[in-house]
Amino acid sequence: MTTLRELGERNVIDEIVKTVGTRVFKGEVLSYPDDAKDLLPKAPRIIVNIDGYGIEKLRLPWRDSSDIGWCAITGSVSDILVKGGVPDAVLIALGLPPDYPVQELKMLAEGLRDAVNYYGVRLLGGDTNSSSEPWIAVATIGFTPAKKPPSRKGLRKDDYIVVTGVYGAMGFAAIKGLEEAQRRKWVVEKTKRPVANKELGVVISSNYRWITASMDVSDGLGYTLLTLSSESNARILLHQPPLYEPSLMDECQGDMECIVKIAMSGGEEYGAVIGVRPEGLSNVLRDLEYYQIPYRLVGRVVEGEPGVFYEDKPLTFASWDQFKGWSNGV
Amino acid sequence: MTTLRELGERNVIDEIVKTVGTRVFKGEVLSYPDDAKDLLPKAPRIIVNIDGYGIEKLRLPWRDSSDIGWCAITGSVSDILVKGGVPDAVLIALGLPPDYPVQELKMLAEGLRDAVNYYGVRLLGGDTNSSSEPWIAVATIGFTPAKKPPSRKGLRKDDYIVVTGVYGAMGFAAIKGLEEAQRRKWVVEKTKRPVANKELGVVISSNYRWITASMDVSDGLGYTLLTLSSESNARILLHQPPLYEPSLMDECQGDMECIVKIAMSGGEEYGAVIGVRPEGLSNVLRDLEYYQIPYRLVGRVVEGEPGVFYEDKPLTFASWDQFKGWSNGV
Repeated sequence: MTTLRELGERNVIDEIVKTVGTRVFKGEVLSYPDDAKDLLPKAPRIIVNIDGYGIEKLRLPWRDSSDIGWCAITGSVSDILVKGGVPDAVLIALGLPPDYPVQELKMLAEGLRDAVNYYGVRLLGGDTNSSSEPWIAVATIGFTPAKKPPSRKGLRKDDYIVVTGVYGAMGFAAIKGLEEAQRRKWVVEKTKRPVANKELGVVISSNYRWITASMDVSDGLGYTLLTLSSESNARILLHQPPLYEPSLMDECQGDMECIVKIAMSGGEEYGAVIGVRPEGLSNVLRDLEYYQIPYRLVGRVVEGEPGVFYEDKPLTFASWDQFKGWSNGV
Repeated sequence: MTTLRELGERNVIDEIVKTVGTRVFKGEVLSYPDDAKDLLPKAPRIIVNIDGYGIEKLRLPWRDSSDIGWCAITGSVSDILVKGGVPDAVLIALGLPPDYPVQELKMLAEGLRDAVNYYGVRLLGGDTNSSSEPWIAVATIGFTPAKKPPSRKGLRKDDYIVVTGVYGAMGFAAIKGLEEAQRRKWVVEKTKRPVANKELGVVISSNYRWITASMDVSDGLGYTLLTLSSESNARILLHQPPLYEPSLMDECQGDMECIVKIAMSGGEEYGAVIGVRPEGLSNVLRDLEYYQIPYRLVGRVVEGEPGVFYEDKPLTFASWDQFKGWSNGV
């Protein structure tokens, strides 16, 4: 088995670039292996993000190294999309052990390639390091024509709360455990390679006038709603669950409380929670439908202290903290 | 001793942002803790880089956690400067163990703050993860007015080779070992917080017409010269050593071969190697002097196969590979 020790540092990122490919757009000068890359703005406003991952932490039992490559790109790209950006390029930093098999590196690179192709971004370059625990960090650069990309802080009374995406698979794994989850085909299929909706950026940027706040669901829907509520200092009242996996109905034997709790837990769904002014709601929903982005209108912002309520009860969900582990949130 | 487990994931990046501070420029909308940040272009061309580090690998015996924060920013900013960019902002991804002391996190943040202030960049945000081996990745976004930022590939026959920076301290540690190095005040002082020259970006961007290639010295001067030579398919003939630490003269008892070998080895000096067309040399040197950037004209590009020669001998130096360790390169 060939390992990175034999391959050598400079060949690791080479191997990735060879698999993923790079693209230099007209007017750009620098290219891999230059240590920095130039790019020309494609819209008046740049949007950037960085996300890091412990590679083994992304490794659900049913995810191979290519899925992990996919997930790492998806997580960072999703943050750009939800702010109304069109992602343009990614940079990757990697930490891998010297005895890491080259075969696994190749698979990781294939997953990065699949994601880069799917999201229509390009790899600009990267950096490799030796690390006993493997890790990956992805920085994404995107552009938006929106004059005012939505922050987490903008929810106002009477806003409608729209949730895109379909929930429950990762929440099932979080609450029932990986062993149980592994036996559910629907959980495995849905969580192997989560997908962020590519057109969401266009919908958000073209409706920025009416979108008061937005945040992607990377750490669970319940956590996302609660964060938007506290950052915006606004109370969210939910009157409907988000779209959820049909199998959840059986798993919960039709108990709506069970369904909502599972749908609100989990993470890496990469849907979005969006606050919309009443006067813009029909435009936003029309655009979501045009791009066939699954969504549901789940609630509204109401008078009162920050907090998230489902009908008359405070929302409960399981939330993951990298340092503290799983906990049952408020 | 408080650890990150008690602090919790969301508070880790909070702690850093609190220490380092963030700045939102006029016209920008998003701010920490939004998962993405917007920025407006400050010059026609964007320049980006990512660099990652194993935190313990940056930890020379005489570097504390604040020095490591400094070094991580310096490494990424240096890549922007050497391409003629003015660094504007950084994004940080961190992996730290749950039992990492909060005290060390605070020191790391102080070093990040010192570097951010020194280089005049701002922290846009970041992401934290749990990792048994601590790591940090820094992505820098900069801008340049240069129509053609210099790549690694542009050296041409008759170019002058200019090396900025003063060499020998890290090479001494590489060749003589850390124990020996630790007893030399000049080595400790020079390598504790290496500094990239802030004005280098201005010199390079305003002379881009005559600068055919450039690369920063992050992996040792010998390696940098050799890489420029092979990427440019050009032979470099050196006739002078770069500027070197005066103490090296004593250490080598005046033996020039010893001095050159140590100066060519090492890494993290963050000087630059620049190829300059003869017709632009006086402009480049005048600007380097104006900004008081230490430099020496070390050689020229000559006819012949790629390779780096010091007078009539091929260059020798020690080079570090993350996966293979130290080796005596050609």
